[in-house]
Amino acid sequence: MVSDEQAIRDLMAKWRRLSAEGNADGLLGLLTDDVVFLTPGNPPMGKQQFEAGFRGFAAKASIQSQQEVKDLRVSGNLAYSWSHLRVTFTPRHGKPIVNEGHVLTVLRKDDGRWRIARDANLMPYAGNPNKA
Amino acid sequence: MVSDEQAIRDLMAKWRRLSAEGNADGLLGLLTDDVVFLTPGNPPMGKQQFEAGFRGFAAKASIQSQQEVKDLRVSGNLAYSWSHLRVTFTPRHGKPIVNEGHVLTVLRKDDGRWRIARDANLMPYAGNPNKA
Repeated sequence: MVSDEQAIRDLMAKWRRLSAEGNADGLLGLLTDDVVFLTPGNPPMGKQQFEAGFRGFAAKASIQSQQEVKDLRVSGNLAYSWSHLRVTFTPRHGKPIVNEGHVLTVLRKDDGRWRIARDANLMPYAGNPNKA
Repeated sequence: MVSDEQAIRDLMAKWRRLSAEGNADGLLGLLTDDVVFLTPGNPPMGKQQFEAGFRGFAAKASIQSQQEVKDLRVSGNLAYSWSHLRVTFTPRHGKPIVNEGHVLTVLRKDDGRWRIARDANLMPYAGNPNKA
C-alpha cells in the first residue's frame, strides 16, 4: 500500500516515461475526463484537444522531460503539486528545442486512483511547442 | 456558519475589493506566509515580492478586476479554483490597460481560515503589469 504522495510521484514518473515513448493512450489514462490544461496565450484545452496535440507532436519529435517537484500536498481526494519542468523536444529532422518553466497541477482521486485534473503550465511554449 | 465554498468566494470578493482600494496590508492577510505566485516569464514570487510589487503598482494606478469562477472544489483543508480574470489598470496619468486570462489557485485552510497558497496566473502581464 503506497501513500497518496508516493502514488502521485509514481504518476508523474509514469507521465514522463509515457511522454518519452509517445504513448498517447497511456497518458490519457492519467487524466480525469474533465481535465483542463491552461497555458500562456492559448484557450483552455480539454482531453480531446490534448490528445490531438500530443499525437500530432509525438509523430514529429521525441520528448524528454526532467521534473523537479518543489511542493506536493494531499488532503482527502484532492492534491496539488508545484514543479519545475525542463522539456527537450527533438524533432526527427532538426535540432533539439528546450522549453522550461513552472507548472501548478491539481490532482483528484476517483475510484482509488489519482489523475491529473487541472494543470497550469507556465512554460513559454506549453500547449504549442510548434511555436518554439 | 458559511460553507467552505462560500468562504472562498467571499475571500475572492474581498481580494478584488482590497485590490481596488490599493490595500496591501489587507491583501497580505489573505495569503499564507509561504504563498507562491507563478506568472509567465518571471521567477516564482513570494509574499514579500508580492507586497513590494503591489505597493509599487498601487501607487501609480488603480486596479479593477472582474472574475468568473469556472470551477471551485474543496477537500478537507485544501481547495482549488480555476477562474478567468479581467483586470483593468488605470494609471494616474494615462490610458487604462486591460489584462486578462486564466488563473489556477490553490487555497489552504489553517486555523479555520482560508488563504491563497499557490497561484498560477496565465495573464500575459501578470506579475509585471509595467510591461503591458
